[in-house]
Amino acid sequence: MNKQALAYHAEPRPGKIGIDVTKSASTQHELSLAYTPGVAEPVRHIHADPENAYRYTNKGNLVAVITDGTAVLGLGKVGGLASKPVMEGKSVLFKRFADIDCFDIEVDARHPQAFIETVVRIAPTFGGINLEDIAAPHCFEIEQALVEQLDIPVFHDDQHGTAIIIAAGLLNALELQGKSLAEARIVVLGAGAAGIAAIRLLLALGAHRDNIFAIDRQGVIHVGRQDLNPYKFGIAADTERRTLADAMNGADAFIGVSGPDLVTADMLASMAPRPVVFALSNPVPEVRPALAREVRDDLIMATGRSDYPNQINNVLGFPFIFRGALDVRASKINENMQIAAVEALRAIAHEPVPAEVLAAYDGLESLQFGPDYIIPKPFDPRLRERVSAAVARAAIESGVARAPYPAHYPD
Amino acid sequence: MNKQALAYHAEPRPGKIGIDVTKSASTQHELSLAYTPGVAEPVRHIHADPENAYRYTNKGNLVAVITDGTAVLGLGKVGGLASKPVMEGKSVLFKRFADIDCFDIEVDARHPQAFIETVVRIAPTFGGINLEDIAAPHCFEIEQALVEQLDIPVFHDDQHGTAIIIAAGLLNALELQGKSLAEARIVVLGAGAAGIAAIRLLLALGAHRDNIFAIDRQGVIHVGRQDLNPYKFGIAADTERRTLADAMNGADAFIGVSGPDLVTADMLASMAPRPVVFALSNPVPEVRPALAREVRDDLIMATGRSDYPNQINNVLGFPFIFRGALDVRASKINENMQIAAVEALRAIAHEPVPAEVLAAYDGLESLQFGPDYIIPKPFDPRLRERVSAAVARAAIESGVARAPYPAHYPD
Repeated sequence: MNKQALAYHAEPRPGKIGIDVTKSASTQHELSLAYTPGVAEPVRHIHADPENAYRYTNKGNLVAVITDGTAVLGLGKVGGLASKPVMEGKSVLFKRFADIDCFDIEVDARHPQAFIETVVRIAPTFGGINLEDIAAPHCFEIEQALVEQLDIPVFHDDQHGTAIIIAAGLLNALELQGKSLAEARIVVLGAGAAGIAAIRLLLALGAHRDNIFAIDRQGVIHVGRQDLNPYKFGIAADTERRTLADAMNGADAFIGVSGPDLVTADMLASMAPRPVVFALSNPVPEVRPALAREVRDDLIMATGRSDYPNQINNVLGFPFIFRGALDVRASKINENMQIAAVEALRAIAHEPVPAEVLAAYDGLESLQFGPDYIIPKPFDPRLRERVSAAVARAAIESGVARAPYPAHYPD
Repeated sequence: MNKQALAYHAEPRPGKIGIDVTKSASTQHELSLAYTPGVAEPVRHIHADPENAYRYTNKGNLVAVITDGTAVLGLGKVGGLASKPVMEGKSVLFKRFADIDCFDIEVDARHPQAFIETVVRIAPTFGGINLEDIAAPHCFEIEQALVEQLDIPVFHDDQHGTAIIIAAGLLNALELQGKSLAEARIVVLGAGAAGIAAIRLLLALGAHRDNIFAIDRQGVIHVGRQDLNPYKFGIAADTERRTLADAMNGADAFIGVSGPDLVTADMLASMAPRPVVFALSNPVPEVRPALAREVRDDLIMATGRSDYPNQINNVLGFPFIFRGALDVRASKINENMQIAAVEALRAIAHEPVPAEVLAAYDGLESLQFGPDYIIPKPFDPRLRERVSAAVARAAIESGVARAPYPAHYPD
């Protein structure tokens, strides 16, 4: 795999993305339209009314994938430059799944304030900003500042993208297990960007505050701890439980966004009947599916891997969420839009799967809503239509859209 | 023209550039190479050795066209957003002429220091930086700071690109008029980015300091003036001449990078025998070619327009200069490389023109080095080969290249 991945990135030319000239520009006349003197006219129109940038430039379909390289994959703080293959990869996914053009921008900034300033200054270029691989807790203040200062959608995918897919999968899994989110006791292992955002979204969706135990390297995040940053304090539980084992005892759901093999057979065995286990650490999950099955046969399990059922994969979300947001010129991607995406993903999983989706997955003969299919597959063409439409509608209903519901969207 | 230009920019979709995914990414397996988990391997390799970014990402073929929108075309300070059509247009030219991928970045920065900081922070993304439409005098300090702080080529095209084409055209025109650069008396009208850079390059090429009169809105830039910034003071003449008319009297060459119709028939008549007149203001030149011809028949004239002979057009330079610089991984585009580009452009104009070049220009039956053909045409395929090769060789010889002369370049 490693050798193949290197060859894929290097041959026949380095990297994965380039520029596509979308207008014909082969003659002197065409160049005089694309550049001087013709180009002066759209410049004048945009100068007169900034909204015209959406008419005469690619701004409205252009997203920046921006990182400071502080939390890249499982590799940690590798810096802006080394994260470039990941950011180019994200651009590939945006284009491939939602026809969104995406520039990768790797930023060298020592302090969050420098990063924020930089993004604000280059923001006129873009119709939206996807923050990527920025370490917690800085990611929270960075995103908040950018959302406040900019009038285009700013979305930290490692937070909200992950949270949305987790929430959709979890709600469907709980439904299958005959449990409600409001009553479910949920353990979240890992209190970084994904863990904290997942908890916040689950609370917004109706989970009960007292039922959620978040756990970091020091154990259960409880209100008595003196070492909590404001973001962790905001999700702290009022509880006597202190360890992961304490928290797992009787839990209805486990969400791991942490590291390999942290959940033991004893912990699994101590969970409530019919539990849900999302072991999302990549490539090695918090508990291996084979072990989990051995310990109990009443669980529903998901991982971050494509070689097991129920892959929790951000690509189910961000391309379509941005597509919907861009298409109605939303000024932000608010909680209503995020929840709309969750509901759309849930609904798709409940419906019969088109033959073309099965065809994209060799060896799959059928997929039906159930323990091994709680969330749609990445190559499902319904994602683009349905998730984008739900997000666009929610943007309009929550008053952050600046363009009408597109005519080519489903009714 | 204006209506057509707006339609060109708006239809069938807004803008002129988008993203091209350069690797196949249609199957789950290919996505696992392009993104997680495969992408971790190139990340590790770049983290271990930053040079690997040139092997596994598009950095080595990626140029940023960056502006602060302070001097856009003849329109002045329209701001970052309104300048986007120009920057996208530049990206079109980079791709079309030299297959260089180019992200346009519009920066909102009130102070040069903020602009510099921003560019430095996002620089890891790119293999080179083309500064565009930044007003003088800030453009000088901005470029200088960036050249000092970054290890990739930084090139302000409005300065050096323009200067290179002017110098190539002027040297050829002087040759045809039987004059030498060292002895020619030269008037430069307009002391912004282009004017000052042109003078600096002409001095490097052997023009005599006492023979060059630069003129701004206050008249001749002379050493007695108290209102000069350091950049203008650096090109000030020790002279009693005060007005454009004074300067033109007996001049061998006029280079206008200013505004429409500033040169009168009397001024033209007062020039030395066999003068060279470059009236580069766009779209209306400093003196109309028809008027100039009426006044005297011994001149060689160039403009910035494509509908007259001898178009001084930056597209003859920047795509090929960057191509050469990127291909040998030059850390800068130094004066040696700029002079190499001048010489390559001059030489191409001296040689017989291939039939395919004539074919690209309807109505042209032949082109031969002479008063109406002092500089190559934009669609000449020899530009890419010859200018890039000259620049690459000069980079190697002057010690700023980090990769060898490419095997596919001419010997």
